[in-house]
Amino acid sequence: MPSYTAPTKDMQFVLHDVLKVTETGVPGYDELERDFTEAVLDAAGKVSTEVLAPLNAVGDRVGCVMENGVVRTPEGFKAAFAAMKDGGWTALDCDPEYGGQGMPYVLATAVGEMFVSANMAFNMYQGLTHGAYSAIHVHGTAEQKQTYLPKMISCDWTGTMNLTEPHCGTDLGLMRTKAEPQEDGSYKITGQKIFISAGEHDLAENIIHLVLAKAPGGGEGTKGISLFIVPKFIVNADGSLGARNAVSCGKIEEKMGIHGNATCVMNYDGATGWLLGDLHKGMRAMFTMMNEARLGVGLQGYAVGEAAYQNAVIYAKDRLQGRAVTGAENPSGPADPLIVHPDIRRTLMDQKSFLEGARTFTFWAAHLIDRSRRSGDAAAEGMVSLIIPVLKGFLTDKGFETAVTAQQVYGGHGYIEEWGMSQFARDARIAMIYEGANGIQALDLVGRKLAQDGGKHVMAFFEMVKTFIKENEADAALKEGFLDPLKAASKDLQTAAMFFMQNGMKNPNAALAGSYDFMHLFGHVCLGLMWARMGKAAMAALAEGASDTAFYETKIATGRYYMARQLPMTATHLARIQSGADPVMALPAEAF
Amino acid sequence: MPSYTAPTKDMQFVLHDVLKVTETGVPGYDELERDFTEAVLDAAGKVSTEVLAPLNAVGDRVGCVMENGVVRTPEGFKAAFAAMKDGGWTALDCDPEYGGQGMPYVLATAVGEMFVSANMAFNMYQGLTHGAYSAIHVHGTAEQKQTYLPKMISCDWTGTMNLTEPHCGTDLGLMRTKAEPQEDGSYKITGQKIFISAGEHDLAENIIHLVLAKAPGGGEGTKGISLFIVPKFIVNADGSLGARNAVSCGKIEEKMGIHGNATCVMNYDGATGWLLGDLHKGMRAMFTMMNEARLGVGLQGYAVGEAAYQNAVIYAKDRLQGRAVTGAENPSGPADPLIVHPDIRRTLMDQKSFLEGARTFTFWAAHLIDRSRRSGDAAAEGMVSLIIPVLKGFLTDKGFETAVTAQQVYGGHGYIEEWGMSQFARDARIAMIYEGANGIQALDLVGRKLAQDGGKHVMAFFEMVKTFIKENEADAALKEGFLDPLKAASKDLQTAAMFFMQNGMKNPNAALAGSYDFMHLFGHVCLGLMWARMGKAAMAALAEGASDTAFYETKIATGRYYMARQLPMTATHLARIQSGADPVMALPAEAF
Repeated sequence: MPSYTAPTKDMQFVLHDVLKVTETGVPGYDELERDFTEAVLDAAGKVSTEVLAPLNAVGDRVGCVMENGVVRTPEGFKAAFAAMKDGGWTALDCDPEYGGQGMPYVLATAVGEMFVSANMAFNMYQGLTHGAYSAIHVHGTAEQKQTYLPKMISCDWTGTMNLTEPHCGTDLGLMRTKAEPQEDGSYKITGQKIFISAGEHDLAENIIHLVLAKAPGGGEGTKGISLFIVPKFIVNADGSLGARNAVSCGKIEEKMGIHGNATCVMNYDGATGWLLGDLHKGMRAMFTMMNEARLGVGLQGYAVGEAAYQNAVIYAKDRLQGRAVTGAENPSGPADPLIVHPDIRRTLMDQKSFLEGARTFTFWAAHLIDRSRRSGDAAAEGMVSLIIPVLKGFLTDKGFETAVTAQQVYGGHGYIEEWGMSQFARDARIAMIYEGANGIQALDLVGRKLAQDGGKHVMAFFEMVKTFIKENEADAALKEGFLDPLKAASKDLQTAAMFFMQNGMKNPNAALAGSYDFMHLFGHVCLGLMWARMGKAAMAALAEGASDTAFYETKIATGRYYMARQLPMTATHLARIQSGADPVMALPAEAF
Repeated sequence: MPSYTAPTKDMQFVLHDVLKVTETGVPGYDELERDFTEAVLDAAGKVSTEVLAPLNAVGDRVGCVMENGVVRTPEGFKAAFAAMKDGGWTALDCDPEYGGQGMPYVLATAVGEMFVSANMAFNMYQGLTHGAYSAIHVHGTAEQKQTYLPKMISCDWTGTMNLTEPHCGTDLGLMRTKAEPQEDGSYKITGQKIFISAGEHDLAENIIHLVLAKAPGGGEGTKGISLFIVPKFIVNADGSLGARNAVSCGKIEEKMGIHGNATCVMNYDGATGWLLGDLHKGMRAMFTMMNEARLGVGLQGYAVGEAAYQNAVIYAKDRLQGRAVTGAENPSGPADPLIVHPDIRRTLMDQKSFLEGARTFTFWAAHLIDRSRRSGDAAAEGMVSLIIPVLKGFLTDKGFETAVTAQQVYGGHGYIEEWGMSQFARDARIAMIYEGANGIQALDLVGRKLAQDGGKHVMAFFEMVKTFIKENEADAALKEGFLDPLKAASKDLQTAAMFFMQNGMKNPNAALAGSYDFMHLFGHVCLGLMWARMGKAAMAALAEGASDTAFYETKIATGRYYMARQLPMTATHLARIQSGADPVMALPAEAF
C-alpha cells in the first residue's frame, strides 16, 4: 500500500527562502515566522500521514454506497472527519468573526496540499464546504452569515456547489432549474443538478447546497441566473435543524476515481431556497469564488502527483532489476535497484522537477490572493486572474501525467489496484475536467484574460520576468543554468501573444486554435520563473553557509533539469501556435 | 454506451493506395486484391461491431470472477468466442498444414485492429493463443506441432506466455522457476508466475501454457532458461485430454482495466512440461516471437484510441454547448455542437492524425514481417527489428494519450463509467506496460537496435526517407506540406543518432538518458513518413479523378495537420537528448 511523507521541509523553503513571506508586508503575514509555519505544517503532516493517508485505499476500493436515499461514506471516514474538525483543520483561513482562525491563505494552501496528497477524495468534503463558505461570506446577508458560517467553518455542516445539469456544463445559459419567488421572500427551487460532489453523505448534520437557478425576469442565457442557499434541513430561527427540505440525492455516479467522494445527482422538487447575493447576478457571485476554486483544483493535480511520485521513488530504490550500464552498483545483491537506470532517473526527475515547480507556483499564486484580499492590491488581483487558468490547466494536465509516469515506474505492478498507483492516476484524472475543463481554461486565458484591462496583466507578467532576469544576470551560474533558458522561453511566450494580437482580430479562430498550446507554454514559463527564483534562493543559502548543503544542491540540480529538459517544450508550443487556425479548422465537421 | 464502426475504407486505402500490396511481389500477396480484402474486412467489421463491441462494457463492469479455482469470463464471452471460432477468425494467418487459412500477416493485422478496437480484453484470449501457436510453430517438434497446433488454431485450446515472477519482470535472469528433468524426457516445473493473461478461464477445453524455467546445467542468469510446454490437461497419444496437470490459478488480479481478461497468478507445483526448442535457449525462443508480439501491443495502443476517438467525434457532433466564436452555426438550436469550437477541433485532429498515421505505420511493419518471412528478405527483417520498439513504445504512449484526449471531449461525462470513455483510457494504459515497458523499448532501440549489424538498419531507414523525399520533391504541394517538415524531422533524428554515437561510447548514460526521447522522435519521423506517403497517394488518387474526392481531401488535410502541429515535437526531443546525461544523472540516489 502506498505511503505518504509530508514535504514540510520543501514547503518551508518555498515560504521562507523563495517567497520570503514575512518580508512581503502583506497584513497578517508577520505571524508566518519559520517556527510558526513549521509547527502548523508538522501538525498537518502528522494528520495527513496518520489519519488521512491510511484511508485513501479503502476510500477507493469501497467507495460511497447509497441505499434508500442514504449515502454512506467508506468505513473510517467519519472518525477521520471528526479528527479534522477537532483539530481545527477546517477553519484555518476562515473569518475569526465566525469561528475561523484567520490564517493567511498561503498557509492554508500548504496544509491543503498535504491533505489532498494524503486523500484527495476525503478532502473534497471539506474543500467544497470551504467554497460554499466563501460564497456566503462574500455575498451573504449578516443573518445568512450568522446562520451558516459558524457551522460550516466547523464542518458540522458541509457545503456543495450546484451548477451542472444533464444537458449543460460549461454553457450555463442553457440551465433549466427554476426558482419561483414565494410570498415570504424565499424561493421554490425545482430542477435536476448533476456531478454534485459531496451532495449527500453521512459526515455532517446538515448540507448547505448553493444552487444556481433561473428566477423570473432575468432575461435569456446566463443573465437570468441567480444563486440560492438550499439547506438539506431547514435551519430554525434558533439555529436548530427543522424540516427536511425537498432536495434529495437521485443516485451516486460510478466514476473512474475519487470513489471516496459521493458524486450525486441532486433533485430539487420545489425545495425551499434563499437568494444569496443579488437577484440575477448569480454568475457574478460564482465568479468571485472562481480563482480560489481553480487554484484548489490545480493544487489537486500536482498534490496527487506528489503522492504518486513519493511511492515511485520508494519502488525505484527498492526493486532490484538489471544492472547499471556503467557497472554494478549493488554488487552483493542479485541486481541493482531500478533507480540506477538512466531512463528511470529521467522519469523521476521529470516528476520531481515538475512537482517542486508546481508547489512554488501554487504558493506564489496563493500569496498573490492574500495580497489582493488583505492589501487590496489591484495589481496582485490582476496577476491572479491572469495566471489562474494557467495554474489550473497546466498543473492538472502535468499532475495527471506525473501520476501516470509514477505508475509506469512500477511496471506491471502499477496496473494492479492492490499497489495503489492506479488510484493516483484515476483520481488525478478528474482535476483536468471539473471546475472548468482544461480547454475552457485555455479559452478563458486567451479569449478573456490576455486582453483584460488592455493587456495590462500580461504586460506586467513579462515585465516581472524581464526585471528578474536583469536584476540577477550578473550571477554567471544563475544566468547559464536558469536565466538564459527562462529568457528564451519567455520570448517564445511573447512571440505567441504577439501572434494572437496580430491574427486574432481578423480571425478569432487563429487565437483559439492555439489556446491550449499557449496555456502550456505559459505554464512552462511560470515554472521556469519559479525555478529561477528557487535556484537563486538555493544559491544564496549555500553562499550564506547553510548547513544542509545537500538540500540546496539538490534543489539547484533539479532546477537545472527543468530548465534543460522541460523548458525546450516552449518552442514546440510556439510552432504549433504559429501554424494558426488553418490546419485545425481545415476539415468540415462531416469529415470527422 | 460507446459504439464502434469498422474503418474498412481507411484500411483499404492503406493496403491498396499506400502500400499497394498486390504490387509488392511478396509471395501470397497476389490474393490481396481489393475485392478480396474488402470482403474479409467487411466480414471482420461485422463481427467486431455486432458481436465484440456490445460485450466491451460488460466485460469491464463484471470482469472475470474466480471461485474455487475456476475462472468465469463475463456473460456473453463464451458465445462470442464460439462465434469467432466458427467464423474462422482465429485461424486467419495460421499455417494451412495445421488448419490455418494461410493469409498474409498484414491482412490479419488489419482484422486484428478491428477486434481490439471493439473489445481489447476479449481479443486477448485469442491473441495470446496466437503467440503461443507461433512459438510452437517455429520451435516445436513435428509431434508437438501435430499435437497442439490444430487445436490452438481453432482456439479449442488457448495458449499463454509465462515469463514474469513476483520478483522479476524485465530482468528474467533472476528467475526462480525450476524444471527438473524426468526419466521419460519430460520435466517437472515448479514455481510461481504472475501477470499471466488468460491464464485460467472457461472459454476453452484446454490451456497450453508456455513457461520459462531454469533447467539444470545452463549457468547463471538468462543463459540457464528454457521454454516448456505445460498443458492444463495432459494430452493423450490419441489427442484426447488426460489427467489434470499440477498447474493452477492462485488468484486473479484486480486491475485498472482489461477486466474482461483474467490476469492470473499461476502456480506450478511439479507440473509436467515438455521442452520446446533447445535446452537453455529459452530466451532466444521467446525473442523469435517478440516482433510480432510487440507489434500486437503497439496495435492495441492505437486501436483502443481509435474506438475512443470515434465516440469523441459522435459526442462532439451531438452535444450542444456554447456558440462558435465566428457566429452561430446551429442558429435554430439552443447552442452549437462542440465540434465548432477550435480547441475541440484541435483535440479531434490530434487524435485523427495520430490514429491514421499509426494504422499505416503498423500495416507497413506487418507487411515488412510478411516480406521477411515469405521472401526471406533480410533487409526487411532488419528494418522490422529496428522499428518494432518504436512502434510498441510510441504507439502505446500516444494511443493512451489519444484515449485520454477523447475522454476529455466528454467533459464530466468522460469521468463517469456509464459513458464508457474511462474504460478506453484504463484499457489502453496496460499497453504501455506489458510486453516490455516502454522504457525497455527505448533501451532496446538505443542500446541494441541502433548499432545492430554495424548500424546498417538505421542507415537504411534514413536512406529510405531521403530517397522518398528526393523522388517526390518536384511535387510542390507535397514538398511544402509534407516533404519539407519530414526532412526537418528526419534531420533531427539523424542529429540525435549522431549525438549518441559521439557521446555514447565515452558515457553510455548519455545515450540512455535520451533513449525515451529518441524513441518518440523516431516515432514522429515514422508517422511523418507515413503521412508523406499517404499525402502522395491521396494526391495521386485525386489527380487520377477518383470519385470520392472528400475522402482524399480529408486525408491530405489530416496529414498537413500532423506535419504542421505534431512533427515540430522532434525539435524538443532533440534538445532534451542533446542536454545529455548530466541533468538526468546529477543527483545521488539518496537525494530523491
